[in-house]
Amino acid sequence: MRIDDLINHTSEWLKGSGPYSNIVISSRVRLARNLNSIPFPHRLNKKQGQEVIDAVRTAVEKVDFLKGSLFIDMQQLDALDKQFLIERHLMSYEHARPDNYRALVLEKSEIISIMINEEDHLRIQVMQSGFSLFEAWSIMNRIDDVLSEHLDFAFLSEWGYLTSCPTNTGTGLRGSVMLHLPALVMSRQINRVLSAIAKLSFTTRGLYGEGTEASGNFFQVSNQVALGHKEEEIISNINALIKQVIEQEEQMRQHLFTHQRAILEDKIWRSFGILKSAFIISSQETIDLLSMLRLGVDLDIIKDIDRSTINRLFLITQPAHLQKIENKRLSSHERDVKRAEIIRKTLEKIS
Amino acid sequence: MRIDDLINHTSEWLKGSGPYSNIVISSRVRLARNLNSIPFPHRLNKKQGQEVIDAVRTAVEKVDFLKGSLFIDMQQLDALDKQFLIERHLMSYEHARPDNYRALVLEKSEIISIMINEEDHLRIQVMQSGFSLFEAWSIMNRIDDVLSEHLDFAFLSEWGYLTSCPTNTGTGLRGSVMLHLPALVMSRQINRVLSAIAKLSFTTRGLYGEGTEASGNFFQVSNQVALGHKEEEIISNINALIKQVIEQEEQMRQHLFTHQRAILEDKIWRSFGILKSAFIISSQETIDLLSMLRLGVDLDIIKDIDRSTINRLFLITQPAHLQKIENKRLSSHERDVKRAEIIRKTLEKIS
Repeated sequence: MRIDDLINHTSEWLKGSGPYSNIVISSRVRLARNLNSIPFPHRLNKKQGQEVIDAVRTAVEKVDFLKGSLFIDMQQLDALDKQFLIERHLMSYEHARPDNYRALVLEKSEIISIMINEEDHLRIQVMQSGFSLFEAWSIMNRIDDVLSEHLDFAFLSEWGYLTSCPTNTGTGLRGSVMLHLPALVMSRQINRVLSAIAKLSFTTRGLYGEGTEASGNFFQVSNQVALGHKEEEIISNINALIKQVIEQEEQMRQHLFTHQRAILEDKIWRSFGILKSAFIISSQETIDLLSMLRLGVDLDIIKDIDRSTINRLFLITQPAHLQKIENKRLSSHERDVKRAEIIRKTLEKIS
Repeated sequence: MRIDDLINHTSEWLKGSGPYSNIVISSRVRLARNLNSIPFPHRLNKKQGQEVIDAVRTAVEKVDFLKGSLFIDMQQLDALDKQFLIERHLMSYEHARPDNYRALVLEKSEIISIMINEEDHLRIQVMQSGFSLFEAWSIMNRIDDVLSEHLDFAFLSEWGYLTSCPTNTGTGLRGSVMLHLPALVMSRQINRVLSAIAKLSFTTRGLYGEGTEASGNFFQVSNQVALGHKEEEIISNINALIKQVIEQEEQMRQHLFTHQRAILEDKIWRSFGILKSAFIISSQETIDLLSMLRLGVDLDIIKDIDRSTINRLFLITQPAHLQKIENKRLSSHERDVKRAEIIRKTLEKIS
């Protein structure tokens, strides 16, 4: 498998399947682990950095369900490939920085990825489509168990797993869920919901993680604290919170559908009309309009598109994906033109 | 003929025909006349007001080419009918005011209309599609001649025709041309052009005359002074000015078509897409979007719609027209929904 082969692959989080996939895009579990007796990544020298990479590689090769994974030395990747992997949610912006002997393990279904020498020696990610935190956690648990057999993780019985940043110490666990909340946004209930989430010590971020703005009505909710709770408890807590948010979004969708049908249909069909007609379109506007299109499909107002087509459009209209598809560098304007063309061609058969 | 019969009639100015009809919607000539020995309209008593109406009616009935005209007592009209006539450019907002014994003569092709007791005893209007000021003037000249045989117009050899407002004194003549200047607006050249027009003592107004904002890239240009020039000179001057504006708009369209094709097509097709998809649309947005659609047709980018279809949409989506078509009062929201429906149905066959 090469990175370019991913272009035609449907990322796990884009499948548009799984429980509550009308509201939940994907569920993600992340585990931070560090190797004993080696400094944290920001203090690594070259030899130690390589040592971490080699140790993880050797361990990964022994894990059955990681067979066939791509093992990527980040220094071998150009900026476009890095951006491409970020767009697919397979690694963080942080991991694209040129320093620190970074590597990436990419399991072929794109469910599992491991960043090596990001903020911690290992940042393991498990992604599942829809509202499937427990499934993601159960996969993660197996990975952790198997890797523990081959790697000596830094662990203190008093503190739990040690991490670069104290907020991760303990379990090293973060669960997060990507939600699509257009009805809460349209009805201006979203700020009330977000501030309730914040009070319960969860954080909300945009489509592309830490520091990114919420856009296109997408919100990523995750736990803030990894210490003082068992792993199952952390997952249960966020699971319970998300259930409430889903319920509120569902109620608001029903409310809008019943009481503001015309306004809703207008927004949805206009978005469809613009997407079908535009000759120049930015990435941001695309996300906003596709968000409304997705709502139209979820509410059965638009019948001839499936969710995975929309999800795929979300991804292939991102800057690096566009350039990978075209197989050349594109200026911002060229991307806006190409993006519009791809969207028009995808939607032209649908009336 | 009744007012309601006009709904299915194509107003002269909507035909989309005539010289330079890609840029000029319509040419209009207006003549102000007053009857001798009767006070100007704002000082009329009831008896005198009726006297003016009766005198004009008797004169009009003797004019061959005004045969079959509608003679409307404004007091018999409800607000909706008045608004309907304003939307068709057959009378002014001013003339809809409830005071002053007003009447309206409406020639059946909608080329000629005469407001009685608006600002002057007679305000005669001749409308022609496209850039046809001289044709309009020649029709007007004949009307003026014939009416002069039957009516005693207030005239002083030193001043010419006397009018309520001194700006009209002399010839009482105003020529105006409704222009569609999207390329000058898009290229931000319009303010330069408008200020040049102002310096030459011409005025620019919006779609619905005095006091209305320019919208949808429509600009109505007319002469400001009626005194000190012969009628033919006034018409020639505005004709020459408009020719220059047409030339600038044409050059700018060519420039945009050659150098900013993608931006142009994007704007045009997006407008088309929104018009085909919207379920709620305001009158203002409709004008703006139809303006871009018209440009698309003018530039042969959109091939399956003709100009008269677009012009007809401009008119029938106006508030009073919508209510006449539905044959009932509609709230603002109901109009926005009905307007969107009419537009969708008109455009649905076009791809």
